[in-house]
Amino acid sequence: MPELRKDPIIGRWVIVATERSKRPDQFLTTDQPAPSEQVCPFCEGHEQKTPSEIFSNRPKSSAPNTPGWDLRVVPSIAPFLRIEGELDRRGKGLYDLMNGIGAHEIVVETNKHIANMADLSEEQIAKVFSCYIDRILDLEKDKRFKYVLVFKNYGWVAGAGRVHHSRSQIIATPVNPKRVKEELIGARHYFDYHERCVFCDMIKQEMASKERLVLEIDGFIAIVPFASRFPFEVWILPKKHSCDFTTLDASEKKNLSAIMKKVLQKLKIGLNDPPYNYVIHTAPFRRQKIGYWKSIDNDFHWHIEIMPRLTRVAGFEWGTGFYICPLPPEDGAKFLREIPV
Amino acid sequence: MPELRKDPIIGRWVIVATERSKRPDQFLTTDQPAPSEQVCPFCEGHEQKTPSEIFSNRPKSSAPNTPGWDLRVVPSIAPFLRIEGELDRRGKGLYDLMNGIGAHEIVVETNKHIANMADLSEEQIAKVFSCYIDRILDLEKDKRFKYVLVFKNYGWVAGAGRVHHSRSQIIATPVNPKRVKEELIGARHYFDYHERCVFCDMIKQEMASKERLVLEIDGFIAIVPFASRFPFEVWILPKKHSCDFTTLDASEKKNLSAIMKKVLQKLKIGLNDPPYNYVIHTAPFRRQKIGYWKSIDNDFHWHIEIMPRLTRVAGFEWGTGFYICPLPPEDGAKFLREIPV
Repeated sequence: MPELRKDPIIGRWVIVATERSKRPDQFLTTDQPAPSEQVCPFCEGHEQKTPSEIFSNRPKSSAPNTPGWDLRVVPSIAPFLRIEGELDRRGKGLYDLMNGIGAHEIVVETNKHIANMADLSEEQIAKVFSCYIDRILDLEKDKRFKYVLVFKNYGWVAGAGRVHHSRSQIIATPVNPKRVKEELIGARHYFDYHERCVFCDMIKQEMASKERLVLEIDGFIAIVPFASRFPFEVWILPKKHSCDFTTLDASEKKNLSAIMKKVLQKLKIGLNDPPYNYVIHTAPFRRQKIGYWKSIDNDFHWHIEIMPRLTRVAGFEWGTGFYICPLPPEDGAKFLREIPV
Repeated sequence: MPELRKDPIIGRWVIVATERSKRPDQFLTTDQPAPSEQVCPFCEGHEQKTPSEIFSNRPKSSAPNTPGWDLRVVPSIAPFLRIEGELDRRGKGLYDLMNGIGAHEIVVETNKHIANMADLSEEQIAKVFSCYIDRILDLEKDKRFKYVLVFKNYGWVAGAGRVHHSRSQIIATPVNPKRVKEELIGARHYFDYHERCVFCDMIKQEMASKERLVLEIDGFIAIVPFASRFPFEVWILPKKHSCDFTTLDASEKKNLSAIMKKVLQKLKIGLNDPPYNYVIHTAPFRRQKIGYWKSIDNDFHWHIEIMPRLTRVAGFEWGTGFYICPLPPEDGAKFLREIPV
C-alpha cells in the first residue's frame, strides 16, 4: 500500500511508493549535451573571460583577476537581478511589484577543470563553505536585502550549462523566498506547541531509528527525509541547534565538508554521476527585527537539501505542490548507506 | 531593469526579466525519445490492453471494453494511490502518515492515435471536459476524498510516456494539495479585505489593460499571468464568477472547449509543438463543511493553468519556491496573441 506522508516542517503531503516499483539502481541518469568546446572561462589563466572578481582566495602577492587563486567569486554574466538602484516597491492595479534589485554571483569552486564538487578535496570544499559565509556576511550589510540563496545546479537537467567546471551560485534577494517563509512559519508553529525545534526532534528520531540515515559523523547527519519529494533526496543537518549557517566554526566547517564530500561521492558512485541541485536553508537577515519570527533563533535550524534529478517532475507537481516519490525513502537511504566511500 | 512581481493570489514573488534576453521564438522545444513501437493500448480496437473501463462515451448497443467508443476512462496501470482500504491516519514519532488511498484514472481523450489535444475537434474537447465533470462528481461521492486533481502531461519532458495518444489524468486524494490550500487561503484573505474575488478583479484588470491578454471569447479569457513562473504560461478563466468547475452548463463547456483548442493551437504553432502540462484548479469537495473556507463559493474562482515546458527548472526553484521567468509575460502574451488560429 502506498503511503501519504506529511512533511513535518511545512505540512506538505507527498505520495510515497512503499512497494518498490523500481530498484534503486534502476533510476537512470539521462544523457546530457556534449560539453562546450569553448575555452573554459573558469579555469586558472582565463581570468579575463569573466567579469572582475568580487572575492578570491589568493596569496597577497598575486593581483586580482590573475592566476594564483584557488577559489574565485565573480558576478554572473547573465544576472537575474541588478545590484544598482532602489527597490521602488509599487502597485499596478491589484498587482505588486518592485525593481529587480539583488546580487547574483558565481562561486568558482576550484581553479582546475573539475566538473563535480564530489571530486574536490575536503579541504577545497571547506574553502567553498568559508567563501559562502564570507559572501553572505558581506551581502547582509546591504540593507535592501532580506535573504541570500546559496545553491548549486550540477548537470544539464539540473539547470547547469555546458561548461563543466564546478561552481555554485549566490542570489541575494529583497524578499524572503516562499519556501523559506513556509519553513520559518512551520517551525514556529511546532515550537509554539512543543517548545522544541522540529528539526532537533527530527534529528533525534532519525538517529534513533536509523532507517533513513545515510551517514552520521561528528556534529552532522545526512538523512533521506521521511516525506521526500525525490528519490535519493538527502538532507544534511548539524546536530547542534543553530538557525544560522554563517556561525559555523573552523572544526564544524571541516566536518560539514567531510560529510558533504561523502554524500556527493555516494550519489556519484551509486547513481552514475547524476545531475543534482543543492540549496542551503538558513535564517533570513535581520531576523531580530521581524516581529513574528522573533524567536527564530530557537525554532529554525539551518540545513542543506540535496536533490538528485533522476525523475521527470510533471507539471502537475508544480501546479499542485503535490509530489509523488517513486522510491521508498528507507530504500533510498539503505542504498546510499551501503555505497562504500 | 528586471522586476520582482508578486502573485496576487498566493503571494509568491517571481523574478521577471523585462528586457528580453531571448526573443519569444528562441525558446526551443527539446528533443524527445522516439515514440514507443508497441501497439498503442489506447486506440480503438485495443480495449483489452487496458484495465476494464470505468466510463466511456459509447452507444447503448455497444458493450464495455469493445470498439465503438469515442472517449474512455480506465484505471491507471501504475496507480500511485489505491482505491481499496481505509485511510488509517496515524503518527510515527513526530511524523504523520496515512495509507495511500485514492483514485488514479486515465482519460483516453479520443479513439484515434492523435498525440496533442490541440488537434482534437472542439466537440471532442467538450466531451473531455464533460467527462472530467462526470468523474469528479462520481469521485465526490466517496467520503474519503477531499480533492480531485485533473491534469495533463503532454510530451516527454512534461512527464508523459512514449505512447503518443492524447490523454489526461485524474487523481482523487484524501488531502487537499498544498497549492490548492494556498490559493484558497490567499483568495480568502483578499476577500476578507476587499469583499471581492481576487480572480474577478484580475480578470477585470486584464480585460482593461489587454497587455497580457492572449484571447477573449464569450464567457472566457486566456491570459499570461502577471507573475508567470514560466515563459508562455497561460491561464484560462471563466469571466463569470464560479468556484466550481463542475457547474459548467452546455454552452459554457462549448465556449471553454473553443478557447482551449485555440490556446493549445497557438502554443503548438507558435512554439513548435512544445511539451506542456495543464492543471484544473477547482474548489475542494464538501467545502460547506470546512469552517475556515465557508465562503469559498464567493472568494475562489476555478481556472485552468497551462504550462509549456520550454525551460529547465533548476532545483533551487523547487528548493526555494522562487521562480525566474526569462521572458516578460507581456511579450509572451503578444507573441501568442499574434499567432493566427
